[in-house]
Amino acid sequence: MIDQIRTRVTEILGIRYPILQAGMIWASGYKLAVACAEADILGTIGSAGMKQDLLRSQIQKARALTKKRIAVNIPLLRGDAAELLEIAIGEGIDVIISSAGNPALLAPRIKAAGVTWIHVVPSIKHGKKAQDAGADIVVGEGFEAGGHNGVDEITTLALIPQLVDALSVPVVAAGGIADGRGFLAALALGAEGISVGTRFACTIESSSHTLYKEAVVAANDAATTLFAKRIAPVRAIKNRWVEEVRKAEAAGATREELEQVYGRSHSRRGILEGNVEEGELEAGQSSGLIRDIIPAAEVVKRFVEEFEQNLNRLRRIQS
Amino acid sequence: MIDQIRTRVTEILGIRYPILQAGMIWASGYKLAVACAEADILGTIGSAGMKQDLLRSQIQKARALTKKRIAVNIPLLRGDAAELLEIAIGEGIDVIISSAGNPALLAPRIKAAGVTWIHVVPSIKHGKKAQDAGADIVVGEGFEAGGHNGVDEITTLALIPQLVDALSVPVVAAGGIADGRGFLAALALGAEGISVGTRFACTIESSSHTLYKEAVVAANDAATTLFAKRIAPVRAIKNRWVEEVRKAEAAGATREELEQVYGRSHSRRGILEGNVEEGELEAGQSSGLIRDIIPAAEVVKRFVEEFEQNLNRLRRIQS
Repeated sequence: MIDQIRTRVTEILGIRYPILQAGMIWASGYKLAVACAEADILGTIGSAGMKQDLLRSQIQKARALTKKRIAVNIPLLRGDAAELLEIAIGEGIDVIISSAGNPALLAPRIKAAGVTWIHVVPSIKHGKKAQDAGADIVVGEGFEAGGHNGVDEITTLALIPQLVDALSVPVVAAGGIADGRGFLAALALGAEGISVGTRFACTIESSSHTLYKEAVVAANDAATTLFAKRIAPVRAIKNRWVEEVRKAEAAGATREELEQVYGRSHSRRGILEGNVEEGELEAGQSSGLIRDIIPAAEVVKRFVEEFEQNLNRLRRIQS
Repeated sequence: MIDQIRTRVTEILGIRYPILQAGMIWASGYKLAVACAEADILGTIGSAGMKQDLLRSQIQKARALTKKRIAVNIPLLRGDAAELLEIAIGEGIDVIISSAGNPALLAPRIKAAGVTWIHVVPSIKHGKKAQDAGADIVVGEGFEAGGHNGVDEITTLALIPQLVDALSVPVVAAGGIADGRGFLAALALGAEGISVGTRFACTIESSSHTLYKEAVVAANDAATTLFAKRIAPVRAIKNRWVEEVRKAEAAGATREELEQVYGRSHSRRGILEGNVEEGELEAGQSSGLIRDIIPAAEVVKRFVEEFEQNLNRLRRIQS
């Protein structure tokens, strides 16, 4: 196995391989973050879905289990994003990943605390805003990614090289990556790392329900859809409830009517409780590449080994 | 410059680099096909938009200008697809690229003629059908591609490795690729070639209007949209007319109402006649990577040189 893959992202984060385990609602608690950190990539506690006290205790549990760095992901749409940030900083977290919102909101506090700041964006416009606000690393997340997504529907393959050309800070690719081929492709595009969600949601250490993990394993290339576009676009595996929301959308429902059908707590029901027909099974188009539920360290090992194998394959086809 | 990039696709097609110039409505006549063939990739005459006699004369003009192989693309949605196929075979064309329809329709005639058959698909399901029908090469086209697109909205990055795992025939990647980084990324994913549309529509030799080409050069990452989904999904640059169709879609218009708003001949108006506000400017999300209108041979040269440069970059980051 390659000893190291070196980019500006590994330098900034002090990790061996430029892989970020993404924060995911109901799926990325301290166990997954610790397993990833111990496997020499960036492990992340996803605060989405966590109350403030729960986030604090999750960080403390992680700290007790590993001496490696852990990141906390904070979705900026949360009303108490500033409070979550204070908890993370207070507990000694020195890598913050912000997403789903305006980066300028928390920028002054993040910069004052002197922590490393990673912001997730769906387009060049948002990437420039994040860089201007002081982000150290920008994650470009494509249309194929699971969970919440941008309105411009730009795919990872199209977004990453354009983002790399537009920014001077290092760019990390997210969306559609679940094996070493995607890892290598992302770095070919100019990314200096990858951020991986669904593949890590489908590990032993993920806090998601086994029935959710099994739904991801069963999913094929066409199993997911980006829907609820008039509220906040989200990608999930199609099921009875998703079809109901999509039908309302297609019929031209207003935002208010759609919010009624969309309801609340469906992500908890689907991902944490394993209700596969009535819950929101957030997952990316890479689900079709995921065929087993394995330890996070094994995911990392495969990423690195396949990266190396496929790079060797590419070296042989040119002459 | 690398002398050759060898895959099963270059073996089957007898070309030096595994690059297919895609057939594009109003943009890929004999001049572009000849320029690409002479640059040692697969040049293609796109029959979409051409009457039967025009296709015949286009093939004859190409034949008079090059001894290299030329392909003809036939959209299977055309009512006279069988007649177009007979013309192509009768004129000695030995590579047929079919797209936008059921591959079983023309398969018996294509196989009986003994020509090389390439079929374009948006998903694994369609890829398996094409392979079963006897296709020699399958092109997987992602959501980010310009022009007509599949209903499952699978992106190139997610589709290609899944298609490679599902099929035994070689897979070519289409959608989102406009430079050597995308070329390398596609091959990293397991594709054995790339099919490139928008970048070649923006060359000197393309028959598209200069105002269309300039609109592609001006487009950024978020400039295109996939719309008209209830008729037949198509990706084009947003303009006044596209917004009108999108507004009708969002309001829940029926298929019939949408056909009324969508109208006819908008692709001719936009791409051939250069009406940038009222025409359909079919183009992919890679438009943001395209910054100049250059000869097709220069496009090929850049693809190959950037492939090599980026492969060398990747070799240096592992240890």
